[in-house]
Amino acid sequence: MADEKHFEVDFDVAVVIPASGSGERFGQITPKQYCLLLDEPLILHAISAFHRILWVRKIVVVVEKKYVQYLKQLQDEHKLNKLVVAEGGSTRHRSIAAGTRSLAQEPPDVVIIHDGVRPFVDETVVRKIAWNAKKYGAAGVSRPLVSTVIAADSDGFLQESLDRRRYVASEMPQGFQYDVIKTAYEKANEEDLEHGTECLLLAMKHTGTKAKIIPGPDNLWKVTYRKDLFAAEALLKEEYLSARLHFVDHPKNKPLFEAVSIKCRNKGITVRDSINEQSHPCNNNIFIYSDFNLCGISETTKQVKNLPNHDRGTHGIEFKQCVIQVLDSQSLETSEMNGFIQDVSGAAKHLPNCIVYGILHHNGQVYAQLSDMIANLIWNRDESLSGQTFVINRDQENNFIQK
Amino acid sequence: MADEKHFEVDFDVAVVIPASGSGERFGQITPKQYCLLLDEPLILHAISAFHRILWVRKIVVVVEKKYVQYLKQLQDEHKLNKLVVAEGGSTRHRSIAAGTRSLAQEPPDVVIIHDGVRPFVDETVVRKIAWNAKKYGAAGVSRPLVSTVIAADSDGFLQESLDRRRYVASEMPQGFQYDVIKTAYEKANEEDLEHGTECLLLAMKHTGTKAKIIPGPDNLWKVTYRKDLFAAEALLKEEYLSARLHFVDHPKNKPLFEAVSIKCRNKGITVRDSINEQSHPCNNNIFIYSDFNLCGISETTKQVKNLPNHDRGTHGIEFKQCVIQVLDSQSLETSEMNGFIQDVSGAAKHLPNCIVYGILHHNGQVYAQLSDMIANLIWNRDESLSGQTFVINRDQENNFIQK
Repeated sequence: MADEKHFEVDFDVAVVIPASGSGERFGQITPKQYCLLLDEPLILHAISAFHRILWVRKIVVVVEKKYVQYLKQLQDEHKLNKLVVAEGGSTRHRSIAAGTRSLAQEPPDVVIIHDGVRPFVDETVVRKIAWNAKKYGAAGVSRPLVSTVIAADSDGFLQESLDRRRYVASEMPQGFQYDVIKTAYEKANEEDLEHGTECLLLAMKHTGTKAKIIPGPDNLWKVTYRKDLFAAEALLKEEYLSARLHFVDHPKNKPLFEAVSIKCRNKGITVRDSINEQSHPCNNNIFIYSDFNLCGISETTKQVKNLPNHDRGTHGIEFKQCVIQVLDSQSLETSEMNGFIQDVSGAAKHLPNCIVYGILHHNGQVYAQLSDMIANLIWNRDESLSGQTFVINRDQENNFIQK
Repeated sequence: MADEKHFEVDFDVAVVIPASGSGERFGQITPKQYCLLLDEPLILHAISAFHRILWVRKIVVVVEKKYVQYLKQLQDEHKLNKLVVAEGGSTRHRSIAAGTRSLAQEPPDVVIIHDGVRPFVDETVVRKIAWNAKKYGAAGVSRPLVSTVIAADSDGFLQESLDRRRYVASEMPQGFQYDVIKTAYEKANEEDLEHGTECLLLAMKHTGTKAKIIPGPDNLWKVTYRKDLFAAEALLKEEYLSARLHFVDHPKNKPLFEAVSIKCRNKGITVRDSINEQSHPCNNNIFIYSDFNLCGISETTKQVKNLPNHDRGTHGIEFKQCVIQVLDSQSLETSEMNGFIQDVSGAAKHLPNCIVYGILHHNGQVYAQLSDMIANLIWNRDESLSGQTFVINRDQENNFIQK
């Protein structure tokens, strides 16, 4: 809050996202900015992150000609009214130059440059970058170096090892006064446009503007290798997907709630709500209905029917809601439970992609096994298992307890 | 093979793994080298990778005093007869120095230095490092820089941006002639031991040895942040865990096999075996038994009973085997199928941590849904769901087909 006040943005800001790269290091045919991350292309995560910042007026995404139509389709589907799709250059710098030129008719005060393969951008960082860019002409964000940086001579022998305390890694987003970035690219030569990587350097070289460098949070990395997609998915799940866990059950079941909470936290899932607390509807919800008797099912169905459907999570993308019905019954057959779960699924039809699981057990004390299963189901959020009933039978319970 | 011949290691090699760090950037109480990666501590992955290299004679792991006992326990459990556990210093360099000193009684020709938080090391790289270290006195491995490296002045303004073509990131392992590393640490001053990060630099500074720098593969990164653990897990699953998929079924089911193969490949799971091919027993196996009639179950049980139990995968750690019984039946009740799956689980009792799933469906044509489910089950390999029967009923099939 102090930051928001201090770094107030009361000027016009546009964003340019160069995304015409082919991602050679990625080892996939699909360029990495179009690879799916939780069902949405990576670039949509980056666009959405800026789109929900109120004071960002325009977002120019620069893509290869063959992807223009695809981007326009994403724009329609996700109602991205600030988005402008521009055709890109053959290198990163040519794309940024093209994106900046497209702003000439209605030039903003500050241009923010980002990457299509950096899905995590928070408003606090963008705000600081915009504010410092306005004040000093240019601003960039840095992270400590993970590895030591060295140089070898032409024969491949160590020549130099840099002091890790002096150097940092330059990350995105970066910000520039419009005139600074415009002039930098007008004066850029072929060598700059072909091989350059650092906009901050171009601004320094061609306009004399020394960027203000701000230390950034650790989620500012870019998806470079295939492994990074898995890391990004896990971070999204940790930070956004698991925002709220609603535990709706009989008060007797407090130990189960506690066991689930602990397991979830161990997996990195945030548990915010507690038993019987009035559910505040929001996206990214997981509703766990746990009961000792069958009449609980009709109550679940009623409650699920009334769950509100929200379009977007805090990250700006659509997350699947998840309903888990836990039933402790000595007499219920699996096929009957399957029938109940079908009813619950039917009641959740108005929630897009809602996942419904049933868990049937015969012993109120199997908290360890139950909570393990629930935490895993929530983490994996596997749509192909939606509608399934999982049975914890006496044998398994015994095995589990013996462990 | 050409490499193996060219870089033949016919001299004595020992490994030192400093692992006394606290991992401040990791944001966890457990130091990252002890965090679990597929059920095993990270450091065990690093140790195992060297332990299975025949020409590595000794592996010295340097840990904090309070973890000595834990490491010795790991050593016993995993029969790591080359391992020596040493008590570590307060910094990385002090730990390497301690590890090197512990080799003094029986000095090797070459000392390889690695990190406890780099789970991926392949023999080819270690071989090249050892060979070049023997020849040139020291050798290191490098990767291209992911981000531009910059330096700011004392006021936080950009001062310098390095040419990414000239600099590289220095990774591990590194190798040294014993006398080189011994002398380097004997001559190292307090500043070196307290703040230094680069052994190659110490060797250059104190012995004049310029290390040979070799470009390395892209799996040489270290686990620095929590997100990296998820990336490491995915890479392990892709590279090692999913090594073999045995599809044992009725020839009529070829379309199912093909659908599963495609889905698995899309998820990064390697499919090596084909229908009815004689299963070559190895670890990391996934056996899929698919049948149109009930008599298949007793055959499955028989085959599972005969599956051999291998201790270690190619990566040197123990992976869970997985048996999936798919049954297409119009008449079978879920509870009967549950009984069958219990029988199969019983038959797999000799395989440690073997996971058994059942899938019951009523329509031989649901390949898309079936293969999706199978690929997800294999990827997540969720032990808490072992023993479950998943039912694909007519309604779900219809929903799926309509999509």
